[in-house]
Parts: sequence; C-alpha cells; structure tokens
Amino acid sequence: MRLKLKLDLSKTIGCQCMVSEEFQEVSPADFFWRNRDIAGFTNPARAIYTTIREIVENSMDAAESSGSPPDVYIRLRDLGDFYELLARDNGSGVPANKIPQAFGQILFGSKYKLRQTRGTFGLGGKMAILYGQITANKPVRIISSTGGSKIHDYSLSINIKSNRPKVQKHKVLPNPKRWHGTIIYLNTQGDYTRIQSKILEYLKQTAAITPYADLTFVDPSGRYYRFERKTKELPPPSKEVKPHPAGMDVEAVSRIIASTKTSSMLGFLQKHFQRIGEKTARKFLHHTGIDPRRNPKKLSADEIVKLCTTMNTFKFITPDASCLSPIGEKILTVGITKEYSPEFLTVVQRNASAYSGFPFVVEVAIAYGGALEPSENIPLYRFANKIPLLFDEGSDVARKVVDEKIDWRSYKVQPGSPIAVFVHICSTKIPYKTVGKEMIADRPEVERDMTIALREAGRRLMGFLSKREQTRAKKMRLELFELYLPKIAKFSAQLAHRKKVPDIRPLLKAIASGKSEEPAIMD
Amino acid sequence: MRLKLKLDLSKTIGCQCMVSEEFQEVSPADFFWRNRDIAGFTNPARAIYTTIREIVENSMDAAESSGSPPDVYIRLRDLGDFYELLARDNGSGVPANKIPQAFGQILFGSKYKLRQTRGTFGLGGKMAILYGQITANKPVRIISSTGGSKIHDYSLSINIKSNRPKVQKHKVLPNPKRWHGTIIYLNTQGDYTRIQSKILEYLKQTAAITPYADLTFVDPSGRYYRFERKTKELPPPSKEVKPHPAGMDVEAVSRIIASTKTSSMLGFLQKHFQRIGEKTARKFLHHTGIDPRRNPKKLSADEIVKLCTTMNTFKFITPDASCLSPIGEKILTVGITKEYSPEFLTVVQRNASAYSGFPFVVEVAIAYGGALEPSENIPLYRFANKIPLLFDEGSDVARKVVDEKIDWRSYKVQPGSPIAVFVHICSTKIPYKTVGKEMIADRPEVERDMTIALREAGRRLMGFLSKREQTRAKKMRLELFELYLPKIAKFSAQLAHRKKVPDIRPLLKAIASGKSEEPAIMD
Repeated sequence: MRLKLKLDLSKTIGCQCMVSEEFQEVSPADFFWRNRDIAGFTNPARAIYTTIREIVENSMDAAESSGSPPDVYIRLRDLGDFYELLARDNGSGVPANKIPQAFGQILFGSKYKLRQTRGTFGLGGKMAILYGQITANKPVRIISSTGGSKIHDYSLSINIKSNRPKVQKHKVLPNPKRWHGTIIYLNTQGDYTRIQSKILEYLKQTAAITPYADLTFVDPSGRYYRFERKTKELPPPSKEVKPHPAGMDVEAVSRIIASTKTSSMLGFLQKHFQRIGEKTARKFLHHTGIDPRRNPKKLSADEIVKLCTTMNTFKFITPDASCLSPIGEKILTVGITKEYSPEFLTVVQRNASAYSGFPFVVEVAIAYGGALEPSENIPLYRFANKIPLLFDEGSDVARKVVDEKIDWRSYKVQPGSPIAVFVHICSTKIPYKTVGKEMIADRPEVERDMTIALREAGRRLMGFLSKREQTRAKKMRLELFELYLPKIAKFSAQLAHRKKVPDIRPLLKAIASGKSEEPAIMD
Repeated sequence: MRLKLKLDLSKTIGCQCMVSEEFQEVSPADFFWRNRDIAGFTNPARAIYTTIREIVENSMDAAESSGSPPDVYIRLRDLGDFYELLARDNGSGVPANKIPQAFGQILFGSKYKLRQTRGTFGLGGKMAILYGQITANKPVRIISSTGGSKIHDYSLSINIKSNRPKVQKHKVLPNPKRWHGTIIYLNTQGDYTRIQSKILEYLKQTAAITPYADLTFVDPSGRYYRFERKTKELPPPSKEVKPHPAGMDVEAVSRIIASTKTSSMLGFLQKHFQRIGEKTARKFLHHTGIDPRRNPKKLSADEIVKLCTTMNTFKFITPDASCLSPIGEKILTVGITKEYSPEFLTVVQRNASAYSGFPFVVEVAIAYGGALEPSENIPLYRFANKIPLLFDEGSDVARKVVDEKIDWRSYKVQPGSPIAVFVHICSTKIPYKTVGKEMIADRPEVERDMTIALREAGRRLMGFLSKREQTRAKKMRLELFELYLPKIAKFSAQLAHRKKVPDIRPLLKAIASGKSEEPAIMD
C-alpha cells in the first residue's frame, strides 16, 4: 500500500499556490436557518402558509394521540409590521420540563418513532418559530398542560448558533378544570394576501379528510372560517411498532444489539422485530449462516453486514399494518360530502402493502357531479398521513397515476366532466421527496396500489354513469309519453265517438316504474 | 390576558384519556441517517450514483480552490458483498487536525460561506461516508496533506448517535514531494449496474463543463474511462464576499452586530455589507429613521426588525458578481465541442443578476448538428455551479423555460432536429428545491435570465440555419450547372461548328463564388 500511495501521489502534484480552507461547525438550527427554503420557507407568502400548516398538523397530531376529536383554533392578526398567530388545540399537551426544548431546539421532538404521524421530520413547528424569530424578532409564547394541576406559560426563543432554547419567562398557573392542550402565540412576517386562497384550500381539504375535527380560522381581516365537526368517530389510533427486518441497516441493527438483553441470535430476532417467530428465526439464521446460539453482542462487523443484507432480501411476511390509522370509507364519505357535496362518491381502501419494510395503506375516492365544477384536467386532491399536499403536484406519484395509468374514457369519463379524485396514503414512513413534505416519490409499490385502487373506483363510477344514462333515457322516454299520450287518448276517444277520454295515468305510472312495456289501456 | 386564557381553555376541554408523548433529541447525523432519501440516498442504485457524484464534486472544489487544474481519479472495485471506492484528487487537502471532523461529523465543513462552490449544504461527502458505514460497516480511510512536510492517514467512522468522528487509526507519513490533495478509500454497498449509464453521463457532462479537469474513472469491471484535460485555463476563482443587504434577516444582522467593532450605524453599514458607501448608508438610515450615530449594539429588537425589513425593500445596487466564477464562452466551447462535437455551437453569457441578495450568472449554449442525434424533445443539459443535474428535470426551471418560454419554430428549429441545449447557473446560493441538489426553483429572476439568454442563442442558431439553407440552395444550383453546362457547351460548339468546346470552368467558379450571375463565356 505504501508503494502504491507513492505512485499515486507522484501523478497528482499540482500547483503550489494554496488557499487554506476554513472549517466550521454549524448547529442543526443554523443549518436549517441557512437552508429554510428546503423546509418550505421559500418566500414571505409560502412562509405564512407553511407556518399555519405545520402548526395545524402538530395540533391535530397532539389531539389524536390524546384520543380527543381535535379542536383547533387558529387566528392570524395583522399587527402592522408583522402578524400574530394564535393557535390553540386540545391535544395531549407538552410536559412542562420538555416545553423549552420541544419548541426551541431543532431535532428535538416526539416524531422520531416508527409510527404514523403527520409530522415526520420533527422540524416544521420549530421552523415556524425560527422563521418568526428571524423576521419579527419576538419570543414565542407557549401555554401548555398535560391535564395535571398546573398550566405552564413560557416565553422563549431559539439560540440558533447553539440550537438551544432561551427561556425569557416562565409562569405557572393553576389548572382547576384539568385542561390539556397547547396554545401558541407567535409573531411572524409573511405575505398573507398572496397565499390566502392556498391557506383556505389547505383548511378545506384538511376538514374534508378529518371530519371528526373542529377547525376554526380567523383571518387578518377578522373573517371567520369554521369547519364544523360532522362525526365524533375517530380513525383507530396509530401505534408504535417494532421494526420490520426489511428496513434494517447496520446502524439500526447495531443500536438494537447495543441495548438488547437477549443473549442468543434466536431470541434477539424474535424479540426485536415484527414478523419473526421461532420458526422464521431459525430458517433465517440457517440461511444467513449464523449460529442461533451466537450472542448478538459478539457478532463481527462483517457478520452484521451479512445479517442486514439478508434481512433486506429474505422473504418475510409483509409488515404489520395494524399500527396504521387509515381514514376509512365511512369517515372519508362524511368528509368529502361535507366539503364537496358531490352527486356520486365511492371510496376504495386497499389492503396494507409495504415498501422497504414500511407498511402503507392507500385509500382513494372518486367524486362526481353535484357541486363539483366541470374541469379539463382531472382535479386531484392528495393526502399523506391525513395532510393535504398542495404544492408540486406535477412531481407526485399520484398525479402520474391519474394522468398516465388510468384510461378515464374507458370508465365513461369525458374531458370536462365534473369529477374529483382523492388519494390518501398513510404509512409509518411516507416516502416524501423533500423535507417540505409536498410530493411523494414514485416507489413502484405505492404506484401499483394507487393504480389498482383508482381502477376499482373508476369501475364503480362507470356503473353509476351507465345507470344514470339508462335512467336518463327512460326519463326522456317517459317525457315523450307524457307529452303525446294525452293527445293520442283524446284523439282516440274522438275517433271512437266516446265522450270520456281514457285515463292514461296508470299507463304512465307503469311506464315510469318500468314494469310494463305494453300495458292494457283501461277506461 | 388571564381572563381571555380562561375563556379559551373552557372551550377546549376534551377527553381525559391521555397518552403522554415521549420526547427525544437526535443529532444531525441521526436525522440525516433517518432521512437519507432527501439527500439523494433513495435506493442502492441512486446511492452509488450520489456517492460518486458528491466525492467528485468535493474533489473538484478542493482542486479549484487550490488554484490547480483538477486531477481526479475514481476507481470502483467490486469486492463481492460491497464496493470499494477509491477517490484521489490534487486539491488543497484538509489540515490534519480537521480531518476527523471534516469527514466524520455532519454539519461540519468549509462550505458555510457566501461563496460559489459545488457543495452547498456541506453534507454530501459525509452522507456518502455515512451510507458506506451503514451498509458495509467498515471505517473510511482518508489520506490527506495540505502540501506541508507530512501526510496524514486516518481510518475513522461516524458515531451517528452523537455525530462525532471515531478515529480508529492515525499514521503520519513524510511528504518529501510536498504533495497536496486527498485520497479516500470508502467501502459501500450499492447497485452499480442499474445506474451505470447515469454515472457515465454524469462524468461526461462534468467533463464537458470542466474541460480544464482531468477525470479518470475505472468501473467495477476494470473498464477505464478517461476524460482528458483540453485546456489549462481555469475560470476565475470564486471569492468570498460580504453579504448584500437585500438577503438579510434578524439572525444574520444580530450576528454581525454581536461581532462588530464599529460603534456607529454609519460605519457598521459600510463595513459589513457590500454596495453600501457613506452616501447610501446615510440615505438608507434616513429612510429607516435610525440615527447614523446610533451604536448598533444598542438597537432594540424592533429596530433590528425595521432595519431588516428596510434592507429587503430599499433600492441598493444589485449584488457584486465579481465573486462568481462563471465558465465563460471559451471554456464552454472547448468542453461542449470535446464531448458532443456539434456542427454549430453558440454560447451566451448574461450579465450578473440577483435574487434575494444573492448574485447569479446564467450561461447557455445551443449546439446543433454534427455528432448530435435528432430528438423529438429538445435535450437539455442542466448545470449549477458546474455540477451536472441529471434527475427530476421535469421540476427544474430550465426545462420550463425550454418548453414553455421559447418558441423553437420561430428560430427555424423543427421537431426532431439534432439539437442540444446547455444551461448553467452559478451563484453564491443556488436556489435548489431539495438537499439532493437536482432541481432549481423557478425564481422569477432566474427564469427571466434563462429566457433572454436562450432567445439570444436561438437567434444565432437561426442565423446559422438560414445561412446553411442559403448555402445548400446555392450548392444545389451549382450542382445543376455542373451537370448541364458541359452538355450545353458541347451542344453549342457543335451548333456553331467549332471544334473547341468552350472552357466552362471559369463560369462554374464564378457561380460558386456568387460573384457573377451572368458571366461572359470565354473561349
């Protein structure tokens, strides 16, 4: 190696005019401050959108995890140079000793678990606070209680250089009613006017997908938007799960090895992973060439690699999806009907599927007619873990499926129809393309499930449209009869020199009911 | 406030079935390990692409910042369960005491400055090392020297939980030839076969845009790809600059205030920002309503906000672009000709422009004919700070401009023409949409400059195509004359009973040169 190195070096002697590089460590807060664009804080309009969105999503997560139907109140007040955002929820609240870090430290939070939540990166709420701080330069005020005897009221800011919270004030209030939840007062700059329609669209879509939530928004002009709760039924809560072996890498396995109390590989596999019973564990270990009695803590670096590689290729049962919280046909129907009032609506929920060890469920809905507007392109409403996605639709797998994988004409859908498509994916890990959580990558498994679900919904829509066509044809036929039968009856009566015109009503009734094609004429 | 709070709370009493949330702090390394997808490590194929790409880009940056024409050697060896990547450059090297952190700590680096570099997030190289570690479980070996008397040879890994380097070995070697540069041996998993064509395309495009670099790649089958240096001329080096006031926020201004030694606002503005002389400083302060004699360290929180808001809206001279390092017509022509051998090539460089306080320069080239293949869609080669961008073209502003803003037919470009478009943007801050550095956001200023530059290049192409059309018409005419004139001459001679057929060569020459439409016939 020494010799080789020498040879290598001799080739790469370059010029000697050196500029020494300066090195620097930046904190996570500093990194995301510099690169706030990638978290959705691109410009003043987008910033106010992202702020509201992230805070609504945290509130919803907090409420659902506490088992309460969410009750979220957002008020944006124009204070001249900046806005004051008030957000109030009935969530689980944040333990007093965690409040400073949970709101004043980037990469500190409750989202770093294998569980379906709206938040994924544990970043959004804090980025909203950080953005408020660098534009309005005021501390954020957090009032929270987990339902105990005290309410905590903090004013704090983020020390961006050190990524640590700086508490300015802390008051403790009594909580006689055992309230739980969180209230945030945040000052921030932004351009509300330019983004208003997107914010309202975001809230409307959120309401459509969470009809069990009560959502209120008061805009800077004092206008009051209320999205009322239409059902008290919550989807099953999402649960934390053991990891599936197919998603493992060296770091993940090493961490489990470091903390395990099991002393054999056989026990280790069964205890820490889903979908591995004794039989599977034995088969897997045999396949990997690792003795079932080996102590996991004694595995060599190469053996750990071998273990991971095999975990990624071995045929395990697909991941357990019982931890997921899809919305379900009933709640989706209530929500979409409430916000879009279509004439026809069908919901298809797929069975659970998985990519790289992460389970996911796809739900789609097709709505038609009623209050829907005709549209050249098929309007698509995208949701991921109950979040509406409003930006970068062109790069999302769902748009690709709707445009390229579904032959809408074959389902009798003409361009310009009053149709709307809804696609929801829930997963312990949504394959977002960016930290801004706006587009979903086209993982083949996800694409496939969306396609199958939309085709099924398409067939149902076709059934509805065919039936409606028949009904229309029948109705037209009836209208013709209604128009001409009286004249014919009258004319026939005259011809027969009868005074009494025959009663055609039973005949029309029979035609309408479709019971008789050639009824006898009674008189 | 107290009363209000009470009222608020009374509305939000929900159910009491609480689940307490668990909170957790994760290190930056941990965060990017969990979310490696967003940094381009989506799957084994993409991972090996991103690894090579990030390491090539760091090598290029290191060589250019040392003023040497880059000399980069990459070898990927198949070791069965994983690959060994060897990367060698003649860059500035990394100071010995910084090596562990520079390669083993996320968010530690030399890229956190206002300067044009390929690296932007200071993340890519370390993500490649991290990915290697979690798949191949071997330490990375770094050999580096800044050109002094010693070469340092480290073996290290990243402690992902703590985001700190873990040094396994450290040797010091003599450096008699005063070599400078860096050599990396990295073990990693990946799927080379599936992504080979993209990797070669990446290298080819890199070579096209940096013809002053010598680039060698040895693939896992031992095949040797050499992209030879065609010029020793380097673009002007990029320089670090003072910030432009239009890009400021409260945090940025507060940091400068904390470190300044100036004691008046008048001096403060002139000393720390570009484009502010005394006159502008006075005008600006008058506009802001801040006394020029005020001590910057005594400004109130609201005054800092006011200062920033005004900085963002006040009409300063656009940012200084002398710090940028565009490629220039000469080098671009060498590079594109070398890799694509077109018949026609034109390069347009725009003057510097700016968005949100960051200067940028757009350069475009249109190539036509020669070795280029005809293509239905216009092939687009995108570059940002000399990096080729190969993924997510559909979401890039350049694609939007080529498809929607340029009417190609008006420049005589028919569908299916052998054309290629090259777009390069350089900036102290490229407006990437993602950490994966694949697509550029459609900032209006950028879109505008790309459009203008491509229209200019389009006009030049039209000039070439028109001229070629004329030449072709002329050539066809000449061929006709060449075919029939000898016959006519012979026939005329016979008619006139002359033995000697007139010499038509001067006539053909005159027609070819276009000098004479009706030349006298000489005999």
